[in-house]
Amino acid sequence: MDLATFDPSVRLAAATTLEALETPCLVLDADRMDRNITRLRNRLDGLGVSLRPHLKTAKSIDVARRVMIAPEGPATISTLKEAEQFANHGLRDMIYAVGIAPAKLARVVELRAKGVDLVVILDTVEQALAVAEASRKSGMRIPAMIEIDCDGHRSGVVPANHAQLLEIGQALAAGAELRGVLTHAGDSYKGGGPEAQQRYAEAERAAVVGAAQLLRGAGLPCPVVSVGSTPTAHHAQDLTGVTEVRAGVFVFFDLVMAGIGVCQVDDIALSVLATVIGHQREKGWIITDAGWMSLSRDRGTSKQAVDHGYGLVCNIQGDIYRDIIVADANQEHGIIAVRPGSDARLPDLRVGDRVRILPNHACATAAQHQAYHLVQGQSHVVDARWPRFGGW
Amino acid sequence: MDLATFDPSVRLAAATTLEALETPCLVLDADRMDRNITRLRNRLDGLGVSLRPHLKTAKSIDVARRVMIAPEGPATISTLKEAEQFANHGLRDMIYAVGIAPAKLARVVELRAKGVDLVVILDTVEQALAVAEASRKSGMRIPAMIEIDCDGHRSGVVPANHAQLLEIGQALAAGAELRGVLTHAGDSYKGGGPEAQQRYAEAERAAVVGAAQLLRGAGLPCPVVSVGSTPTAHHAQDLTGVTEVRAGVFVFFDLVMAGIGVCQVDDIALSVLATVIGHQREKGWIITDAGWMSLSRDRGTSKQAVDHGYGLVCNIQGDIYRDIIVADANQEHGIIAVRPGSDARLPDLRVGDRVRILPNHACATAAQHQAYHLVQGQSHVVDARWPRFGGW
Repeated sequence: MDLATFDPSVRLAAATTLEALETPCLVLDADRMDRNITRLRNRLDGLGVSLRPHLKTAKSIDVARRVMIAPEGPATISTLKEAEQFANHGLRDMIYAVGIAPAKLARVVELRAKGVDLVVILDTVEQALAVAEASRKSGMRIPAMIEIDCDGHRSGVVPANHAQLLEIGQALAAGAELRGVLTHAGDSYKGGGPEAQQRYAEAERAAVVGAAQLLRGAGLPCPVVSVGSTPTAHHAQDLTGVTEVRAGVFVFFDLVMAGIGVCQVDDIALSVLATVIGHQREKGWIITDAGWMSLSRDRGTSKQAVDHGYGLVCNIQGDIYRDIIVADANQEHGIIAVRPGSDARLPDLRVGDRVRILPNHACATAAQHQAYHLVQGQSHVVDARWPRFGGW
Repeated sequence: MDLATFDPSVRLAAATTLEALETPCLVLDADRMDRNITRLRNRLDGLGVSLRPHLKTAKSIDVARRVMIAPEGPATISTLKEAEQFANHGLRDMIYAVGIAPAKLARVVELRAKGVDLVVILDTVEQALAVAEASRKSGMRIPAMIEIDCDGHRSGVVPANHAQLLEIGQALAAGAELRGVLTHAGDSYKGGGPEAQQRYAEAERAAVVGAAQLLRGAGLPCPVVSVGSTPTAHHAQDLTGVTEVRAGVFVFFDLVMAGIGVCQVDDIALSVLATVIGHQREKGWIITDAGWMSLSRDRGTSKQAVDHGYGLVCNIQGDIYRDIIVADANQEHGIIAVRPGSDARLPDLRVGDRVRILPNHACATAAQHQAYHLVQGQSHVVDARWPRFGGW
């Protein structure tokens, strides 16, 4: 880890260790993070497309700088708060990848007036007209991308709906700027193995490349063709016609991603440090101070083959206790127990001992915290505290 | 609502309305909140016990002042961050109602040195010895209460374990201060109807009153006998021997509490304001900008008779759309749909229209936000913005 690139304001005293941190808190293993970033970058280099990382999981300029290819971007964001925060730290190229609400265009215009190339997305004619109207009023053509629905899981125009695609494209080209098309294979999080993921990736590609061809065939511009999800980014075999890939959780990974085979449990870079505060020995429980407030309410592995409860338990340096999970959680209490059906034994932990808990869903768990505490691999030394932000 | 008691720094311009707020954001109906507070206060007055409100849901000095009987407390808190924040605003009487980790005693001592009567809780001899040791080192007797396990749901000493109770009590009395006993009927959240709730309440009472008698019988002090959960606080018939009741979510209420009959849906004071950002008409979906980041991942109604998904949908002034729920949620997207099996029709909402979403679990939803926006009943005028805090 190159500490020279860190903001010195968040450097910690040399003596800080995992034993000295207040708990619960969020720990980020920089070695694993760097390995995860390198893995996807190498993969996309091989496919000849550029990475536009999604910073919604990170919400930290320090993580953003580690994952972006340049300090000004490109990047993807999920809230205008992220756009504003990252713009304050020098980002100049961002796609706000949640369908635009007309009332939010004022903040978009404000950022664009400061030289930030902030692009919105949409999937209705009403939104396209609102973007055109805001463009007219502000005297600047606001760039928008048309969201394409590649798998029916959430938003976007169905690729077969040529009439709607062209109507939106024409409204944007006439009154704003048609920047391109974008899709996200949300269904890829359901898993299904490498072949299914390759199909999801090809469905993403086919949906946007087809839409781009339709628009271009009608004489409309479509410079950017954007796909992305962490599972498809790791499985795409051919991205012909695609100009960029968006992905976010690949930086940290989590138990849900491990459950669908996109990473190994050993790749998970994020954990919650907790302290043992009690036992209920007759029940086989260890109680910690990491409840759902620090782990999040996310139970993403509950529908997977292996249910990790509220998280998988490791010792303080990150070595996994086999089949020891956070079986239940209250607001500020976590209940550690042996996974049902396992022959594992509860570790011999005393009041005051510390554990690390791997999250089901990195986006949800990180969102409960105000900072990352950086370690490298099995070191107990905390090298830095990277602040993160929340809100909208 | 008496605006004269508000901190003027958080007063908003007179013209602010629900239509003008950035979404998603948290809305608090002051009329409903005041009604909920009055209801429990009147009830406890009738039972002759005092209220020590739990501020873990609120995490806001403005809400705290509304619910406490005096500016200095008493109150209950779930993190040392709450203790420190509320102490900065004048609170002087708090129980930190999560088993103490020895490493946290330094912060407890620091607050006590500032004149804050902060009390810790514990259920092991190791913790009692750690509190005694910290008392010796700091030269101040730190008060601690023994947590009693009244229903086997989480932490605490089983009431029948007289030897452990006495050993902890003696360790505290010798080296620290034995302030009393405390329990929490976590199982009461499972519901079961008024008679079951009355039994839970009596189990709470019996557990702590019995423990207090045991300690006193051994010549140990036990001035405080504390019980509490919102369901039992609303159902206790007799609290003889109990000196105080703790409860928290009663201030706001939520769909889980309505589901077990502790309140009506119409009592819920908290909601998330969201904006419509799209439709998938063939699927019967309305897409909003309130995903799980603003609603939380809490699916507390999933095991109840009526599953509200990620929340129940109302119009902008809080009138419920019958059987319209947030059926699914991604990080910043909510999918509104008709409840499965219902004959209700999706409301005719257009892009840019606003809705309010009632939460499954007020504690989890509020935790996702940095402020409350206050309205009164069906008014669209936002009277104040009350900041809230998070972290540990």
